Amino acid sequence: MKAAVWYGEKDIRVEERELKQLKDNEVTVRVAWAGICGSDLHEYQEGPVFIPVGEPNPLTGQQAPITMGHEFAGIVEKVGKDVTSVNVGDRVAINPMYTYGRKHQDIDAYDGFHFIGLGSDGGFASHVNAGEKHICKLPDTMTLQDGALVEPMAVAVQAVKEGGMQFGDTVAVFGAGPIGLLTIIAAKAAGASKIFAFDLSEERLAKAKELGATHLFNSGQVDPVQAIRDIEPDGVDVSFEVAGVAPTFVQAIDATRARGTMVIVSIFARPIEWNPMQLTNTGVKVTSSIAYTPTTFQQTVDLMGTGQLNGRGIITSQIELDDIVEKGFEALTNDKSQAKILVQLSGEL
Amino acid sequence: MKAAVWYGEKDIRVEERELKQLKDNEVTVRVAWAGICGSDLHEYQEGPVFIPVGEPNPLTGQQAPITMGHEFAGIVEKVGKDVTSVNVGDRVAINPMYTYGRKHQDIDAYDGFHFIGLGSDGGFASHVNAGEKHICKLPDTMTLQDGALVEPMAVAVQAVKEGGMQFGDTVAVFGAGPIGLLTIIAAKAAGASKIFAFDLSEERLAKAKELGATHLFNSGQVDPVQAIRDIEPDGVDVSFEVAGVAPTFVQAIDATRARGTMVIVSIFARPIEWNPMQLTNTGVKVTSSIAYTPTTFQQTVDLMGTGQLNGRGIITSQIELDDIVEKGFEALTNDKSQAKILVQLSGEL
Repeated sequence: MKAAVWYGEKDIRVEERELKQLKDNEVTVRVAWAGICGSDLHEYQEGPVFIPVGEPNPLTGQQAPITMGHEFAGIVEKVGKDVTSVNVGDRVAINPMYTYGRKHQDIDAYDGFHFIGLGSDGGFASHVNAGEKHICKLPDTMTLQDGALVEPMAVAVQAVKEGGMQFGDTVAVFGAGPIGLLTIIAAKAAGASKIFAFDLSEERLAKAKELGATHLFNSGQVDPVQAIRDIEPDGVDVSFEVAGVAPTFVQAIDATRARGTMVIVSIFARPIEWNPMQLTNTGVKVTSSIAYTPTTFQQTVDLMGTGQLNGRGIITSQIELDDIVEKGFEALTNDKSQAKILVQLSGEL
Repeated sequence: MKAAVWYGEKDIRVEERELKQLKDNEVTVRVAWAGICGSDLHEYQEGPVFIPVGEPNPLTGQQAPITMGHEFAGIVEKVGKDVTSVNVGDRVAINPMYTYGRKHQDIDAYDGFHFIGLGSDGGFASHVNAGEKHICKLPDTMTLQDGALVEPMAVAVQAVKEGGMQFGDTVAVFGAGPIGLLTIIAAKAAGASKIFAFDLSEERLAKAKELGATHLFNSGQVDPVQAIRDIEPDGVDVSFEVAGVAPTFVQAIDATRARGTMVIVSIFARPIEWNPMQLTNTGVKVTSSIAYTPTTFQQTVDLMGTGQLNGRGIITSQIELDDIVEKGFEALTNDKSQAKILVQLSGEL
């Protein structure tokens, strides 16, 4: 089968690759759609970041070259003989996360984690073999494109949960890239009464507005903290840092009310210079979010099934696997108006 | 009356000073004992930090020169005509904190705050006039020396409350100066099952042990994180950063369990270089504590009254007002074995 395989920085090859032998506890999924994630882009632009190179990752047992793609959905084509909860023909999304499973799911990931599509062969291929526990059935109300959006949506749902956001709360989202946009969608679905969105790109801000943000500001043109304080003098209840740089880190804290919560959702590539007194002076609490628990992943499917969560608005492009480098990774690198690009793997399913 | 008055950095003068006229809502306290606080020391060594210079502070209406001393207790000698809850002869501690009082006490201080003894004339004098709302009656079980310890003890009680510490939790305290030692006492009283204490000074560690820390480590000799992980593999439930420097900030987070809390108790004099990914990688939440709420101050008096909290162990020296610079500020500057120095203001009371 054809697959998009990561060999190194700026070296993703679409090439023939064998599907690994199906294990007894695995199912073969025929992939319909797979999304390109910001993490995939980092692997392309400056990897390896997560991808194991030189020795197998202890959780996945695999190393580069690896077929990428961890946001995907499709139809079950074959089931291993120990599989009990999944049947051929099931429409499914894949929870790609591996953990050691030694602790409660709320803290399990902090012992280490990895992903199908970064640590083992993933969804940028017509077929994937995945363990039964990674399989999540889709309700009839969801398309397979919706299914490919479950994974990034679950990241946003987890972030909103980590912030302790309550019905009616005011929130601020710093950074309106794909995860920022999904955080806006999730906060809206959780009942945020005001959603302030900040970005440097007018196109992204327009998208943020379309998806439910109530107040939009270009951080390059206004002081975000003042913009919020003009409307919410005490600051917002919960803020989300989804840009990963020092200015938004400081702004997100200053924009939050005393004893409100700032959630780090982004990945910081490098240290920042910062005075912890900012917390002492503001009374803001800082927490973080990483991926999602199995419960959150299932809740995300359920909420997408009911229509409370709808991610379709973030899809900006649909491409073929053969075009994944040029129309996928390069497009995301060069065009800030791109949010989520979906790759079609198996024609019409 | 004689008073220790701050004029500038390294310029605290013991001199004659008039007691200001008593206002109708104030009482005159004859001061028995007053403690020298770390904040006082900062004002001496490198002030002004908090002390208003050049123009009056909006909360206190006063500016330097100011009589220092915000940890004090004594006996009520006179009451203004509007005072209803305090009587002549009452034995009292003073809650020195001023706030605007516009919001709930849990967040009121983040609008700004100041202190009797830093922003207006304080307890390093035989008499202080203080508003009725600053007065807190002492139970008979408490001495006036105990009363002078209420203020710093309340800081520690607030810190333990901010950490969400629960009965049986394990805690780590980074820095065993006066507030670190009081945090150990408070954590013990709140039912911490293990208390790890770290400092560079063997004398302070010995004091920490005496006051209830169960595991002592010299941070100059062992890796604090490893020392904790050897005993508590998942880390402690709550950690307290009471040193105010980058290494302890990072250590306090790394020593805490996933989804545990790190409380910033110290004052950071300067920014640190830090990667917010440390929170994403560990799942630790960071919060902070500043001073105390009125409720916490009263709870501290109550807990000291029952004997559940006892701060006497941190007193390392008792001095006269005339000796406050040499045997007080200079001793604290040069002698790490000093913890709390109490100044006697009115002979035997």
